[in-house]
Amino acid sequence: MQNPDFSAAHSAAKTLDANDPLRDVAAQFILPKGQIYLDGNSLGCMPKAALTAVNETVQNEWAQDLITSWNKAKWFDLPTDYGDILAPLIGADMGEVVISDTTSLNIYKAIFAGLSLRPDRHVIVAEASSFPTDLYMVEGVLASRPGLEMRLEQDGNILDLIDKDTAVVLLNHVDYRTGKICDMAEITQYAQEKGAVVIWDLCHSAGNMSIDLNKNNVDLAVGCTYKYLNGGPGSPAFNFAAKRHLAAIKQPLSGWWGHAQPFEFNTEFQADHSIRKFLCGTQPILSFRAMKAGLDIFSTLSLSDIRAKSMALTSQFVTLLAEFCPELALLSPRNANQRGSQVSLTFHGAYPVVQALIKRGVIGDFRMPNVMRFGFSPLYNSHADVVKAVEIMTDILNTKTWQELRFQTRVAVT
Amino acid sequence: MQNPDFSAAHSAAKTLDANDPLRDVAAQFILPKGQIYLDGNSLGCMPKAALTAVNETVQNEWAQDLITSWNKAKWFDLPTDYGDILAPLIGADMGEVVISDTTSLNIYKAIFAGLSLRPDRHVIVAEASSFPTDLYMVEGVLASRPGLEMRLEQDGNILDLIDKDTAVVLLNHVDYRTGKICDMAEITQYAQEKGAVVIWDLCHSAGNMSIDLNKNNVDLAVGCTYKYLNGGPGSPAFNFAAKRHLAAIKQPLSGWWGHAQPFEFNTEFQADHSIRKFLCGTQPILSFRAMKAGLDIFSTLSLSDIRAKSMALTSQFVTLLAEFCPELALLSPRNANQRGSQVSLTFHGAYPVVQALIKRGVIGDFRMPNVMRFGFSPLYNSHADVVKAVEIMTDILNTKTWQELRFQTRVAVT
Repeated sequence: MQNPDFSAAHSAAKTLDANDPLRDVAAQFILPKGQIYLDGNSLGCMPKAALTAVNETVQNEWAQDLITSWNKAKWFDLPTDYGDILAPLIGADMGEVVISDTTSLNIYKAIFAGLSLRPDRHVIVAEASSFPTDLYMVEGVLASRPGLEMRLEQDGNILDLIDKDTAVVLLNHVDYRTGKICDMAEITQYAQEKGAVVIWDLCHSAGNMSIDLNKNNVDLAVGCTYKYLNGGPGSPAFNFAAKRHLAAIKQPLSGWWGHAQPFEFNTEFQADHSIRKFLCGTQPILSFRAMKAGLDIFSTLSLSDIRAKSMALTSQFVTLLAEFCPELALLSPRNANQRGSQVSLTFHGAYPVVQALIKRGVIGDFRMPNVMRFGFSPLYNSHADVVKAVEIMTDILNTKTWQELRFQTRVAVT
Repeated sequence: MQNPDFSAAHSAAKTLDANDPLRDVAAQFILPKGQIYLDGNSLGCMPKAALTAVNETVQNEWAQDLITSWNKAKWFDLPTDYGDILAPLIGADMGEVVISDTTSLNIYKAIFAGLSLRPDRHVIVAEASSFPTDLYMVEGVLASRPGLEMRLEQDGNILDLIDKDTAVVLLNHVDYRTGKICDMAEITQYAQEKGAVVIWDLCHSAGNMSIDLNKNNVDLAVGCTYKYLNGGPGSPAFNFAAKRHLAAIKQPLSGWWGHAQPFEFNTEFQADHSIRKFLCGTQPILSFRAMKAGLDIFSTLSLSDIRAKSMALTSQFVTLLAEFCPELALLSPRNANQRGSQVSLTFHGAYPVVQALIKRGVIGDFRMPNVMRFGFSPLYNSHADVVKAVEIMTDILNTKTWQELRFQTRVAVT
């Protein structure tokens, strides 16, 4: 078999990278040595500033200033201070975003918040294709409060499930498996016309595209910070609530950090009037400080540049795969406008191919039963990365080296 | 006025410190320069190993190994692996402790866990003197599930409130304000005779005394790791559940980390059979790694040595204050056997005195309306610290310098 010729692709990539307005951003990260990392949809790379921030926090704020750092270093305010930094990335206003806890917990809070806005309704609508923890948390809400009902959309027609009994609709903005973008404007409007409250899970879109929560009149949203926001492993998650709802919202994870006067030490809970009402307990400060380094990188960047580069990267990947690896089937939408910043492919040998790629330094991931996922971070991935990844993929498929790799269980985190 | 003579006290302290079996442990910590830190009941000092651990995690596990660290560095197992390290410090067995989230959230899980063991009962008994978030979380449970009732003990006779309707009794092992130890054996036995399930909040006892959860047949417990366990600011908290209950327990914060097969990505939740069923979402790995440095210090220490030193330090403090600062009233129990590792005092000028002490490098804290709290860590505080602190306190009271300090709001975290 003749060796496939990637010279034109390399040459085109060189031009694209030279003209990339984000070309200098990668220098703000430590990238893994000798690897092409296409798994930023699971865990984003490390901003150099994260290391400095964590060291400063440990050596000075913790070791020296200790308890005085709650005031002096404003530890107690980090959830809202950092929420305000994140806000413009998702089209939210100051005071509408708070960072704390985990996505799963924040979904629980958001669902109860939605229910508190629609006390006369009892149905929660969700998608079977959700990242599973979203559904598990709906189950958790149902287990907490008897009399509620979950309607699970299985056929792509979620609108049909929304009716006068629907309190809350829980949606994934970008599908974690396929990368398909859900139409935020259309579904939000439809659900609200039916009187329901909408919660958007932004885990797979925050940081890789413009998100216009307020322009779309979104009620509630949640998301994580460790994927495209590069906050670090298990960095805290966020809640968004539209200002118009803040006064009325209640959620039952009512710990002291969400109290209106947390340092009065009253025996009765009185929720803070602000977005702080989504807070519960004492937050992990080291993980917060690392996360801020990820958020700060966005301060000088344009989300439209980011989205444009994201589309260019995934389109390039899709086009090259169609040419060089025709045996792989595209699971993601072919139209870049409908696709997030990932490309998913199906192949009967998906698992061993992902293993073979990892051995060759191309990091993607595998999802049951036969899906390969590749996430592209516009902040640190280049067009050259894309060509090299496809070149290695082509070699693995042509030489069939992947067939030697046996199935092993692999832990991976979406 | 004649200068008070501390020479005998200094001399006695010197002997005590020389004979202290824990005298070398302080060298494992970075202690704040020029300070006598008596606030380890709020935030423990930094173990030197924490800095190394966090750097290693950020530079290697995150920056280089990235997503493969979920397997390679066992990130996914940290909650149970570290739970097993903590277990012997509280008299628990392997597989009975899991570390995650915050104390507040873990109280919510524990209360629901208790309710799931007593489905035919509807009353939750708690103490008004609890750290307030305990009560706020009971309120949260009541807000989640209609039909439950909280009985709040206000007069010291909690046993009177426990009856055949009582599902759960939530108790603080050591009172955060007074430092008084609650009798774990007596109340657990009484509550269980009445058919109730008992939850112990160990925030102010874990790490400063022997706790015998299993010897006392305790059902459930929670606690934090950032006080006497020196886990770092906002380090994750823990849940304990006795093995005999694990199979039957349910709790509604049912995120994917608590799923029996989290990487199968099923749409239906199926709780893990182990203590992992208390887990919910993705955990903050940097804060976990720092915390382990705190736990590791205990591996070579004896809890009876720790408790003996704790009692010696607080007793020395109480005795010296009685001699040199008679205007301060002891709020903590006079009998060291009934006292945790803190001494609380009341004084009409408590707030400015605490401020004056801080200015002089003695770090304690203030609790409304007139309480000064001083926490003593047997791991890094010395008898010399105690004498110096009392000497400075005596000087502040005698010279009345504290009267110049005006009242300011101060954020402090228990």
